[in-house]
Amino acid sequence: MILRLALGTAEESVQALRERLESAGLRVLRSPEEARPILAVAGKVPEKLAAELRTRAEVAEIVKPSGELLLVARAMRELPSVVDVGGVRIGGGDVVVIAGPCSVEGRELVLEVARKVKDCGAHLLRGGAFKPRTSPYAFQGFGVEGLRQLKDAGEAVGLPVVSEIMDASDLPAFLEHGIDCLQIGARNMQNFTLLKAVARANRPVLLKRGLAATAEEWLYAAEYLFEGGCEQVILCERGIRTFEKATRNTLDLTVLPLLREWSHVPVIVDPAHAAGIARIIPPLARASIAAGADGVAVEVHLNPEEARSDAAQALLPRELLGIVSDARILAAVTGRRLHP
Amino acid sequence: MILRLALGTAEESVQALRERLESAGLRVLRSPEEARPILAVAGKVPEKLAAELRTRAEVAEIVKPSGELLLVARAMRELPSVVDVGGVRIGGGDVVVIAGPCSVEGRELVLEVARKVKDCGAHLLRGGAFKPRTSPYAFQGFGVEGLRQLKDAGEAVGLPVVSEIMDASDLPAFLEHGIDCLQIGARNMQNFTLLKAVARANRPVLLKRGLAATAEEWLYAAEYLFEGGCEQVILCERGIRTFEKATRNTLDLTVLPLLREWSHVPVIVDPAHAAGIARIIPPLARASIAAGADGVAVEVHLNPEEARSDAAQALLPRELLGIVSDARILAAVTGRRLHP
Amino acid sequence: MILRLALGTAEESVQALRERLESAGLRVLRSPEEARPILAVAGKVPEKLAAELRTRAEVAEIVKPSGELLLVARAMRELPSVVDVGGVRIGGGDVVVIAGPCSVEGRELVLEVARKVKDCGAHLLRGGAFKPRTSPYAFQGFGVEGLRQLKDAGEAVGLPVVSEIMDASDLPAFLEHGIDCLQIGARNMQNFTLLKAVARANRPVLLKRGLAATAEEWLYAAEYLFEGGCEQVILCERGIRTFEKATRNTLDLTVLPLLREWSHVPVIVDPAHAAGIARIIPPLARASIAAGADGVAVEVHLNPEEARSDAAQALLPRELLGIVSDARILAAVTGRRLHP
Amino acid sequence: MILRLALGTAEESVQALRERLESAGLRVLRSPEEARPILAVAGKVPEKLAAELRTRAEVAEIVKPSGELLLVARAMRELPSVVDVGGVRIGGGDVVVIAGPCSVEGRELVLEVARKVKDCGAHLLRGGAFKPRTSPYAFQGFGVEGLRQLKDAGEAVGLPVVSEIMDASDLPAFLEHGIDCLQIGARNMQNFTLLKAVARANRPVLLKRGLAATAEEWLYAAEYLFEGGCEQVILCERGIRTFEKATRNTLDLTVLPLLREWSHVPVIVDPAHAAGIARIIPPLARASIAAGADGVAVEVHLNPEEARSDAAQALLPRELLGIVSDARILAAVTGRRLHP
Repeated sequence: MILRLALGTAEESVQALRERLESAGLRVLRSPEEARPILAVAGKVPEKLAAELRTRAEVAEIVKPSGELLLVARAMRELPSVVDVGGVRIGGGDVVVIAGPCSVEGRELVLEVARKVKDCGAHLLRGGAFKPRTSPYAFQGFGVEGLRQLKDAGEAVGLPVVSEIMDASDLPAFLEHGIDCLQIGARNMQNFTLLKAVARANRPVLLKRGLAATAEEWLYAAEYLFEGGCEQVILCERGIRTFEKATRNTLDLTVLPLLREWSHVPVIVDPAHAAGIARIIPPLARASIAAGADGVAVEVHLNPEEARSDAAQALLPRELLGIVSDARILAAVTGRRLHP
Repeated sequence: MILRLALGTAEESVQALRERLESAGLRVLRSPEEARPILAVAGKVPEKLAAELRTRAEVAEIVKPSGELLLVARAMRELPSVVDVGGVRIGGGDVVVIAGPCSVEGRELVLEVARKVKDCGAHLLRGGAFKPRTSPYAFQGFGVEGLRQLKDAGEAVGLPVVSEIMDASDLPAFLEHGIDCLQIGARNMQNFTLLKAVARANRPVLLKRGLAATAEEWLYAAEYLFEGGCEQVILCERGIRTFEKATRNTLDLTVLPLLREWSHVPVIVDPAHAAGIARIIPPLARASIAAGADGVAVEVHLNPEEARSDAAQALLPRELLGIVSDARILAAVTGRRLHP
Repeated sequence: MILRLALGTAEESVQALRERLESAGLRVLRSPEEARPILAVAGKVPEKLAAELRTRAEVAEIVKPSGELLLVARAMRELPSVVDVGGVRIGGGDVVVIAGPCSVEGRELVLEVARKVKDCGAHLLRGGAFKPRTSPYAFQGFGVEGLRQLKDAGEAVGLPVVSEIMDASDLPAFLEHGIDCLQIGARNMQNFTLLKAVARANRPVLLKRGLAATAEEWLYAAEYLFEGGCEQVILCERGIRTFEKATRNTLDLTVLPLLREWSHVPVIVDPAHAAGIARIIPPLARASIAAGADGVAVEVHLNPEEARSDAAQALLPRELLGIVSDARILAAVTGRRLHP
Repeated sequence: MILRLALGTAEESVQALRERLESAGLRVLRSPEEARPILAVAGKVPEKLAAELRTRAEVAEIVKPSGELLLVARAMRELPSVVDVGGVRIGGGDVVVIAGPCSVEGRELVLEVARKVKDCGAHLLRGGAFKPRTSPYAFQGFGVEGLRQLKDAGEAVGLPVVSEIMDASDLPAFLEHGIDCLQIGARNMQNFTLLKAVARANRPVLLKRGLAATAEEWLYAAEYLFEGGCEQVILCERGIRTFEKATRNTLDLTVLPLLREWSHVPVIVDPAHAAGIARIIPPLARASIAAGADGVAVEVHLNPEEARSDAAQALLPRELLGIVSDARILAAVTGRRLHP
């Protein structure tokens, strides 16, 4: 249950209400909204207490979200939330493009890609240092050294960086090397241990949707992050697993407008992992932004055929340029703007 | 195997080649292209004959499409095909909007909706007279009387009409009442009897994708239409069945750019049956056109809550107006135009 | 709503009740049960009438099935229904094995297979004369001539025959040639035209589940048959479409015990179309009967590698012998018996 | 590539071959088979070296498994592998029943359930101490205290215990409390960090299939365990996510016989998480063993309606008794035996 209090409710009234609820054995969590205090109540509110709440003057509105999706619920915020990743604002009307190599494959290479990414007008540099691979014999990434190379490249060209974290024990390395945004991969979306650890790091988190996760389960994973103390979450749709074999996965844009209603959390789209084929990524990137996404994330490689992972879906810099250009137009068409 | 002959190959050479192939027991079908003769060869071409074909001067290019997708293959046409439905051109750079009631529910009602549809700038009037319903006890449509009402409404406002045919024995009624475009519904996509019968009618056909049909199976259904003599086919994506329960189906826009590569047949999108919720249709319509669709089809009702079928996904006229307006902009952004 | 009347309710009371309901604009259908009259009421029963029904002495029990699944509902019968196909009883504790070639490929061949099928102890001979094929260029079956060959083979060895009907216009040929059981294929499960036509034929019908049909939709398809006058329906699970690509489809045995609760209609399993690989069919046939299926249907070929369709999943006669033997044991283990 | 050497190949020849391969930059892993040395070669073997291998006298057979599925491949063992969990043998012809509460909910309760489980003839006691829950507000298990209670109950009645590990940092507690078998849950199937950590513990591992994992990905997860040093792996099918909503998941028994061909690793089935409804579990357990499973795992509760998790799918002790009894018969019918 979410209690939206009256604008300007005095802090002591908020505390009194909070104590009233906690004395009934309920857990109370609070939105960071300042002008209007908003409380989320976890657990089942007894009918008698619910009736009392309906009569309290300071309770302006009672919202019952689906299940226990509380902190991510749209009603917890006055406006959709905006996540600041190293100065780049995601959500709230700004559309962003995230680009970079699938995996960091060497200091020179990542720097060169970073320059192109910056030149093309993208806003964040992505790159994998720890790679989740289906086979134990596949290239597993450069690890910490990859993080260092990615961050150095990002700093050299002036772009914040995002990289996937697979293990809570790597968190100190991510923080030490100043990785601006921690990505939770699709396979780890319900790795609750990792979610709880990452939540405590106080860094922006990019949470990919699991390969067969419902939108509701995905939001629950985000709820774990918020409940653990992280207020800076970005969702990333990347295609779901269906019977269709022509493409690697099926991009679920259908659920995008629903996420807007259910949650205040920004949502970007990674069309590359859905498509699995570079040449069909540009129209899917356009579709994503037209459907309302707050941005797109793509993979770029200077020589895609030499990439050590996901070669088939890496774009050339000139294709990235087209995506940024399209994003600018489609952001405008949908009443937003490309992040400057 | 598809044989693209040299531009201006003499008709007698085409015939000679054709006879050579037929004498080997192969079936030969021909594209309607005039300047460049193009032949599709069904069946397995023996290696010796294939070698001979590679040396023949009149054979400019040999294309091996996936499986036996021949007549729908991109290589069968110089340009993507354009279907003319009562003067409205679908495909070839023209984007269209199809709208109307889910089912025809009475002469006055359908006329009133038709007027709104026309006023909003849509190009074709849709409406169901024969309704495929999961339950035998559900409203099954007005039948032939519905066709008459739909056509009369279309003529009154100047819009060609499209309606679903479920049974080959109803074909005379569809032709008699001048239904401009015959729709094959998702459940009938592999009703081969119906496909063969409709193919002979020499009318434009709107072929919806089956609920769990792969893109390849869908194209094979279109191949049945072409093989049966119908050259005027429009594909209609309407969402596929996945594990996600938040929406009725999942719109598969991922496959759209692939269809462009594989086939010359125009593709439109029906976002309403995927979404199942009216208020999320507009962003999905935008996404569809941004992904390259040649048009969108939606349901309109003056009082959605009173609709006898699919009430939850019917749009109000003002929402249709927004979709037409968006379609105009997105067509332009993607280098096309809204059909005038 | 289903009204189970008191045992031995007088016929005139039944008629009076029926008229009471029909006078309220409701449609009333009746179970063939004789000792206990059972009425199905289609449409929404007004609360006032429902209250009246609860007080009527002759109404022993009111059952509300899911949606409008009426005639197929378990509550419509005292015992699970038994379908008699040419003397072979399906359901009610008798387990059957159906076997034969995927398609009828010639008089000698089908006769030879029929002899083997009979020798192995199977109960029904199956064989396709009209084949639904994804590609228009694939072998489409021998048509009416195939029906004749199949029936002749069945008569020669003393087995009733089952064959797929794809088109209502072929119905006279199926009846004329004495096809004992009409199969509706997976692709036609929601071909309502075909369902309605077949229902009127007064023959046993084998209704395959659609590739992506929910159990509920499948039962609604059976409801169409019952509503159209056919009381002899057998359901056939044949695998559903999932993301798993190692097998052709995924056999849904999970839903089998639920079907037992929801419906009185017998259910058999076709493990061959799910598996798509002959050598894994025997364990799946065992699993099907262990899960409670009333029988299994498989394909047999004397030289599988020469079969004109579905070669990969055809069993050799000795493999069929093993399946019949397993079926005998598993029927006994689950408190039933192999049909004698 | 898998090299099956000649029976009785001298150890020095094995070493020489190994060095030859490693000198070519390939990684070589060895099967624990003693009589016949078997080597798995990870990485791409150059054609020249492959040719040499084909001529070497000590190489009896070269097997190319799918992708890089090496250590789990059937060819790596002479016989299917058998896993010993505290004296209970899983695989190799012995069928087992695993049972216990979904979550450990208190010392008395788990002891009481353990006694019933033992009395019913089950072989292993299962119980969750760390519970992966979709919502952060749901009961997350008793943690280490739960492990202690579970192990104490197991010891009191003489049953080895299995419990789910969600986090590598909990591993010392699992080892200290003598948990006999470590379960990796469906959501963690591709938590590679956890797989690597657990592999090093030298304990039997029960690896559940991910909700949308293909059989191939599942085997790759097992390959991670073997590659990390764990030779004692049991796979556990628990239903996959499909469009069907009548059951919680769809049990994929279709893939079971294929796993037998591809791999030597034993496979058990958890029908409860697929069904989600207690009363349909017994037929599904029967089907699982009939399909060839090496055992089944179910949840038992004395008062299912009071269970703190998964209440709907918990069995009563008398239902467990039926499952053990069925397992005994079905093991015999399929040429195996219930573990004594």
